[in-house]
Amino acid sequence: MGLFLPGLIRRKRDGAALTTDEIREVIRAYTAAEFPDYQMSALLMAVLFKGLNPEELAAWTDAMLHSGAVLDHSHVPGRKVDKHSTGGVGDKISLALAPAVAACGVPVPMISGRGLGHTGGTLDKLESIPGFTVDLSAERSRDLLARLGLFLGGQTADLAPADRKLYALRDVTGTVESIPLIASSIMSKKLAEGIDGLVLDVKVGAGAFMRDLDRARELARTLISIGEAAGVRTRALLTNMDRPLGRAVGNALEVREALAVLGGGGPPDTVELTCELGAEMLVLGGATDDLEDGRKMLRAALADGSARDRFAALIEAQGGDPEVCRDPSRLPTAAHRAPVLAPRAGYVAAIAPREVAQSALEVGAGRRTKEDAIDPATGVELAVVPGDPVDAGEPLAHLHHNGANAGTARELLAGAFDIADEPPPPAPLIIERI
Amino acid sequence: MGLFLPGLIRRKRDGAALTTDEIREVIRAYTAAEFPDYQMSALLMAVLFKGLNPEELAAWTDAMLHSGAVLDHSHVPGRKVDKHSTGGVGDKISLALAPAVAACGVPVPMISGRGLGHTGGTLDKLESIPGFTVDLSAERSRDLLARLGLFLGGQTADLAPADRKLYALRDVTGTVESIPLIASSIMSKKLAEGIDGLVLDVKVGAGAFMRDLDRARELARTLISIGEAAGVRTRALLTNMDRPLGRAVGNALEVREALAVLGGGGPPDTVELTCELGAEMLVLGGATDDLEDGRKMLRAALADGSARDRFAALIEAQGGDPEVCRDPSRLPTAAHRAPVLAPRAGYVAAIAPREVAQSALEVGAGRRTKEDAIDPATGVELAVVPGDPVDAGEPLAHLHHNGANAGTARELLAGAFDIADEPPPPAPLIIERI
Repeated sequence: MGLFLPGLIRRKRDGAALTTDEIREVIRAYTAAEFPDYQMSALLMAVLFKGLNPEELAAWTDAMLHSGAVLDHSHVPGRKVDKHSTGGVGDKISLALAPAVAACGVPVPMISGRGLGHTGGTLDKLESIPGFTVDLSAERSRDLLARLGLFLGGQTADLAPADRKLYALRDVTGTVESIPLIASSIMSKKLAEGIDGLVLDVKVGAGAFMRDLDRARELARTLISIGEAAGVRTRALLTNMDRPLGRAVGNALEVREALAVLGGGGPPDTVELTCELGAEMLVLGGATDDLEDGRKMLRAALADGSARDRFAALIEAQGGDPEVCRDPSRLPTAAHRAPVLAPRAGYVAAIAPREVAQSALEVGAGRRTKEDAIDPATGVELAVVPGDPVDAGEPLAHLHHNGANAGTARELLAGAFDIADEPPPPAPLIIERI
Repeated sequence: MGLFLPGLIRRKRDGAALTTDEIREVIRAYTAAEFPDYQMSALLMAVLFKGLNPEELAAWTDAMLHSGAVLDHSHVPGRKVDKHSTGGVGDKISLALAPAVAACGVPVPMISGRGLGHTGGTLDKLESIPGFTVDLSAERSRDLLARLGLFLGGQTADLAPADRKLYALRDVTGTVESIPLIASSIMSKKLAEGIDGLVLDVKVGAGAFMRDLDRARELARTLISIGEAAGVRTRALLTNMDRPLGRAVGNALEVREALAVLGGGGPPDTVELTCELGAEMLVLGGATDDLEDGRKMLRAALADGSARDRFAALIEAQGGDPEVCRDPSRLPTAAHRAPVLAPRAGYVAAIAPREVAQSALEVGAGRRTKEDAIDPATGVELAVVPGDPVDAGEPLAHLHHNGANAGTARELLAGAFDIADEPPPPAPLIIERI
């Protein structure tokens, strides 16, 4: 169509709306490298200041979605449903949730990401299972979904390539923190999965990308509006990320915790969030029309071993060692398990999630840059949770490490705990349902 | 100092002020191509939205100024004064002004630009004089200033190279229309001239870059604040650009009109603006402390031929044919001079400056892109000015052309005139003095 980029940038800068055709052509031409990064970064900054209206947002997301392949899962009967989390500390929910929902009869085609910075990534956690591969061809994914009712894969190069190129540019030009850009990035990848329903876990608090409830709510509503406009039924829970989720932070440690949930145990908050998100998925997937009924189905699948069996079958199908489900000691284990002790008696008032994540990152559980390698065995295991009483000298947490940076990591970890004379007021895990 | 650009861009985006050291380093590193254009364009867009405070603005301008050579004219006694116009249609003021002020004893080291889009450039006008060169070495400029009290040169490659690189990027990224960026661009080049005083002609109206009086006033104040902070006495006039200045638009045609002014004649508005700007320059240069006295000195220099003699001497010294001053027919002349006639009787209510400029551009008087060649002989000669009565069929203007695009140009020119039953209210040329 012959874009005149300087004029288009000026119009967006001055608050005008771009047309659907213009947006489609901007995304297409940028992905094809037909205009330079310096014009796109200026446009992105203008979008950050001026936003995108609902039509622009739908067009922007749709153009990114159609910059690559869109999966087709019509060969599997029923409504396919996925879950997406905006990222937090200790968030291993997907590992138990996907097989549990599949065991309840709703197909889950799940494509996840890797960890960067303070948040972990489901792919890295899965890869701590010996042999497990997340590199699935479209054909293999289709086969897994048909046979087992789920797959757990990584983003292939042909999925929303526009988003990958745009995200790399946003990361270095101060244009990440825009709700329309965040929302279109998330939804372009999710809509490319060929799903009928999507449940969003929008984290709020000190360990989340969105620290502020109003911004998190705005993001949730924006994500939902994109999903619904694309014909995908979308629900969101705003959930508390002022403390790590569960007790484990670090890849193999989190797989262990997920296996505990699949075995009918595990930390109460992790079980609760699994059942809350899962119930929404079961409703969207048509397995029930009642949330409470959905929760019961999930608790039953966790209690009777059917969710764990589904996970074991999936691990085997994706090349991993299914015996880890019965014997978690087959997962990588760190050489050292060093305690961090309470400096005084009192109550655990708070556990700062970013400090815990930073400590885990120091010993190799995370990445500072995309090129960093991960040590799957390392991380943090909390011995207490907020509200617990502690005595002086009692362990607050254990650092699992293999020697590197253990001193720094223990200092960071010790600094994450706030011990007070009184227990903190209770903080609900599910803040809001949208 | 090790800049972290994404963080710096985010801080500016969120409204924080950058430090002087940061700004100095950003401009230095960008000019040295140490970080990519896409980060600079994002930063420029953030500056467009969030502005620069006075300290940031001074630092930004100073860093651009010191990205290249700064001229030293201390070998010439007295205060050196220049004039800068923000650009309009038919603005040939510098041609007569510089020699007139020099003839009154104030040295004028004048570095001008080329025309682009609807505005003309002093360098292009000067080059329509056969043989005239605007390419002056620093040494030759110094010699001309010492011998003749002025020079009329172009921007050399070593003058504010940061501004040249930044301007090229702003032009294609929708980041031109920022008052701090416009002001720092202008002032970095002017301050590099080694001047003691500067008079700004800030144009306002349909043919100006600033159509709005408030924005023009803000630009004038910003320019003055930068000049004064750098120790250069700076004054500004806001002047009317709702109509072309004088009657000639086009390079050789404008030189002819300037020569008429230097011969004691010329259009009243052109003479008035020359004397108003010149009087400010004479006061800044210390030739008088009274504006009215300055106006009288300039009128005398135009009437007694001393300004014209100074211009002739300069033309000769810069390689041109000084005989044009006595015989303007030595200037290039177009093959055709086509009239545009009044469609009805009435009063000339308005002459739209951009349409006149566009018409002149069509026949070769201007550039669409930097690479375009100019036809110095072509342009528009107005036969009437706003307020004049006209009869049906009487010439409103003549188009000077050499055949190319004459039809389109005549249509554009005809569309520039608004004929009404009543004369328009008078519009003052000098709107405000700051």
